Amino acid sequence: MIDNYKDYIMKEETLDDLQVKGIHIIQKAEGFRFGVDAVLLANFAKVKRNNKVMDLCSGTGIIPFLIAGKTEASYISGLEIQEDMVEMAERTIKINNLKDKMDFKVGDLKDLKLLKSLDKVDVLTVNPPYKLYKAGILNPKDKKAIARHEVCCNLEDVIIASRVLLKDNGRMFMVHRPERLADILCLMRKHRIEPKTIRLVHPNSKKPPNIVLVEGQRDGGAFLKFESPLYVYDDEGNYSEEIKSIYGKSYEDK
Amino acid sequence: MIDNYKDYIMKEETLDDLQVKGIHIIQKAEGFRFGVDAVLLANFAKVKRNNKVMDLCSGTGIIPFLIAGKTEASYISGLEIQEDMVEMAERTIKINNLKDKMDFKVGDLKDLKLLKSLDKVDVLTVNPPYKLYKAGILNPKDKKAIARHEVCCNLEDVIIASRVLLKDNGRMFMVHRPERLADILCLMRKHRIEPKTIRLVHPNSKKPPNIVLVEGQRDGGAFLKFESPLYVYDDEGNYSEEIKSIYGKSYEDK
Repeated sequence: MIDNYKDYIMKEETLDDLQVKGIHIIQKAEGFRFGVDAVLLANFAKVKRNNKVMDLCSGTGIIPFLIAGKTEASYISGLEIQEDMVEMAERTIKINNLKDKMDFKVGDLKDLKLLKSLDKVDVLTVNPPYKLYKAGILNPKDKKAIARHEVCCNLEDVIIASRVLLKDNGRMFMVHRPERLADILCLMRKHRIEPKTIRLVHPNSKKPPNIVLVEGQRDGGAFLKFESPLYVYDDEGNYSEEIKSIYGKSYEDK
Repeated sequence: MIDNYKDYIMKEETLDDLQVKGIHIIQKAEGFRFGVDAVLLANFAKVKRNNKVMDLCSGTGIIPFLIAGKTEASYISGLEIQEDMVEMAERTIKINNLKDKMDFKVGDLKDLKLLKSLDKVDVLTVNPPYKLYKAGILNPKDKKAIARHEVCCNLEDVIIASRVLLKDNGRMFMVHRPERLADILCLMRKHRIEPKTIRLVHPNSKKPPNIVLVEGQRDGGAFLKFESPLYVYDDEGNYSEEIKSIYGKSYEDK
């Protein structure tokens, strides 16, 4: 981190240690904060040395910053529709001195003209809003609602955008809810992103999965592989060894 | 069982106790014998009192006989393309005295005229051939190949037949391989059988699933539920309690 990092943090914001290469992220103290979904997705995404990476629905940039810390990607971009989140992510770039290998853009992933103007990428990550939009119930200006419900984009929009942004045979990695798995697989197939890997995340080994991680390949051949299940807690109710290793040392302190 | 049941068993056949209401099934000593897939599917299928049931790719009838033992279905039919297997299933009906509530037909599930002549059912079960047909490698007259590979029918044929045979809102229950899950969900959707429930079966809690159980509903609404995973073995390498209870007392003796 740069020495004068405190100058970049506003009132009602926190600076949180991502436990990887000293990277810290600026977040709202109250409001939309990153959760386990983002951490699991950044861990699931297979990013090779010199890969170019794009993250959609990027929020304040948690997934790009984790990937910056964990991989040897050559460049990582984020696209997010909410301007104030992008502004926070840009400050996080500055305090971590990452401006040579990262940027964030304000933009709508349904804007295909914008998408086509961007460089194609090897790896695309996305933690999309996972709840269906129920017209009338939500305030469409509510920032949490935009992050969590399909207010500004739906699953098909995300998959169409991914296809546009990926290089031939490039791979997308998505985190979502298991109850949407039929939607995910069928929409990927519809837009010729072949589902290649699924990993289900369960609260513990006795419970149904509540998170699904899916890897798809643009114009890939049909072969779907299931990985071993990931359990957040072990049978004694402690964080599992795998979760501890994904989170790094942060959980050892708690 | 009837008293003179031995008269119905041919050379090179065995009579196996299904561990439910004294029902026994005739099988080849060598050849295609029922496996864990069939037992898990019969356990997964939700059959209500007085339901009519049809089993496709019925083989020697293991799934219909297990359902006859475990449920209060009013009538259970099986359809199978291999004549000698149907003949064995008919002898199993006789020795178990089940002719008032069961029958088996020789027929091709691609024969939609035949299917439309049959009564519609509340519940359809199917343990289809799960391996893709690789032309040239297999002998298409090989009975095991027909049961295991998509020689005589493929997954889409099975789903089309299921739609024809199901009543409105009737439910189908299928056992298959997890690597075909995208095919299963997308083909169900294509033919308006909505995926409703998925249960994954793992060798143990550490390993990826190797069997998938899927429930679909004809013209059902979109909501997919995952059940808790089923592990065949526990962490000590013994059959899990759930598997023991599904198999009944047969495993206690082994």
